[in-house]
Amino acid sequence: MIATIIGVGLIGGSLAITLREKGMVSRVIGVDQQESNLQKARELNIIDEAASLEDALQRAKLIVLAIPVDALLQLLPAVLDKVQPHQVIVDMGSTKEKILQLVAGHPNRGRFVAAHPMAGTEYSGPEAAIPDLFTNRTMVLCDVMNSDEDALELVENLVDALQMRLVYMNAREHDLHTAYVSHISHITSFALALTVLKKEKEQGRIFELASGGFESTVRLAKSSPDMWVPIFKHNRSNVLDVLEEHIHQLEQMKQLLEAEDYDTFYKLIQKSNKIRKILK
Amino acid sequence: MIATIIGVGLIGGSLAITLREKGMVSRVIGVDQQESNLQKARELNIIDEAASLEDALQRAKLIVLAIPVDALLQLLPAVLDKVQPHQVIVDMGSTKEKILQLVAGHPNRGRFVAAHPMAGTEYSGPEAAIPDLFTNRTMVLCDVMNSDEDALELVENLVDALQMRLVYMNAREHDLHTAYVSHISHITSFALALTVLKKEKEQGRIFELASGGFESTVRLAKSSPDMWVPIFKHNRSNVLDVLEEHIHQLEQMKQLLEAEDYDTFYKLIQKSNKIRKILK
Repeated sequence: MIATIIGVGLIGGSLAITLREKGMVSRVIGVDQQESNLQKARELNIIDEAASLEDALQRAKLIVLAIPVDALLQLLPAVLDKVQPHQVIVDMGSTKEKILQLVAGHPNRGRFVAAHPMAGTEYSGPEAAIPDLFTNRTMVLCDVMNSDEDALELVENLVDALQMRLVYMNAREHDLHTAYVSHISHITSFALALTVLKKEKEQGRIFELASGGFESTVRLAKSSPDMWVPIFKHNRSNVLDVLEEHIHQLEQMKQLLEAEDYDTFYKLIQKSNKIRKILK
Repeated sequence: MIATIIGVGLIGGSLAITLREKGMVSRVIGVDQQESNLQKARELNIIDEAASLEDALQRAKLIVLAIPVDALLQLLPAVLDKVQPHQVIVDMGSTKEKILQLVAGHPNRGRFVAAHPMAGTEYSGPEAAIPDLFTNRTMVLCDVMNSDEDALELVENLVDALQMRLVYMNAREHDLHTAYVSHISHITSFALALTVLKKEKEQGRIFELASGGFESTVRLAKSSPDMWVPIFKHNRSNVLDVLEEHIHQLEQMKQLLEAEDYDTFYKLIQKSNKIRKILK
């Protein structure tokens, strides 16, 4: 099977490497707005060839859209317009409700499967692509009742080959839950980096002192604004809702510290420890 | 050399394992308020024997205090009272100013070296002890001009054997910088866990969807309140200062989202990306 991957960055590139490695695709055609990305992806042997969007769309059985969600919103309708009955389109977008609303009435809607891999790193671009990015992670498929049976089956087989757990959700649920388990973590990490960069004038000291704890809470702040601003934009009301609650929790901790009420602070931390049951 | 380790948890236990492995100590005597910790530490071969505080203090050349900072504040003066001229006391406490103020005028102050390893995990107790916890991490030694030369030299040799980077700081500086690079990360992680636990009623969904990003920002919320409440208490004003700035940064992001000012949001994220230069 020939696959066209639009957006040969971290996600698209990792997918290309892994699908070829698993024998699911025989040839990968890359499409990217940035010529330099295509060149790197070819050099790194992530794609077999680069092609124009039109050419790449015509020649592939599988078309993967691995681009930021704002670009996706622009491109998906045009791709759906041109899709042939034997072709399957799948996206990798981090938000789902707006995208699925946009194409809800499209005559070729059935050829499209909406997917979101719960996987990634703080790095971007084809040089960040790695073969085991998806292993043991979750792939969410949204509103699958609106996809054609054969299209869904093809994507489910891919997910299986990637050794991912498969979860089905509607788009609304998806956007709500990802606000909690992904988007808020990024907001808090960006804010933490800004806090430290502002308050800590002696930045050499950060480097000397930073231990695993700091690195793990702040590493997401290396993430690209090109990817994340569109996510916050498209999931604005859920993100605002969770962000408000997060600020409220921090305010509460601040007040307890101000009042030197360490007993209540202790109980709050004990309560937060319950996350142990949910995380491995 | 015989070492007495008071507090055979994550830090004390890891130290015992590593110092013996490196041939720096020939025998480790364990002291702990919790009998079950001593029993586990013996079973896991972390210590050679358990002893009473009095007995353990008399028989060791090196005395390590690896207990929460509030317990340290209570115990250190008594240990200093009893120290013999050939013995060396070192602590592993996460805050330093209050402790060093407390023992500033003590006649045996010179036998004490104030240390803080910038290392740890979210787990606690002797079963969490691991041999490579300290490797390539930073050990901060505070106010070393108040320690006797031979005591300091012994601790510096230990740090060297642990393959740690050595950094010297005064206690005030230490408490300020650790508020930025360690304490605030824990506060934000506790708050994030509380946010998610409160807002996300379908906790199974967290488990299904949580990717590496969520896990890394929230894993510190598994940390023990027994260790962390005393730290926040003893570094209260620095922590409050950083926490205030962090809440301010989050408020700013919230306002930008509310106003849908995505250009400024983009610039903020770009600014936070500068943390790349500081973290590896």
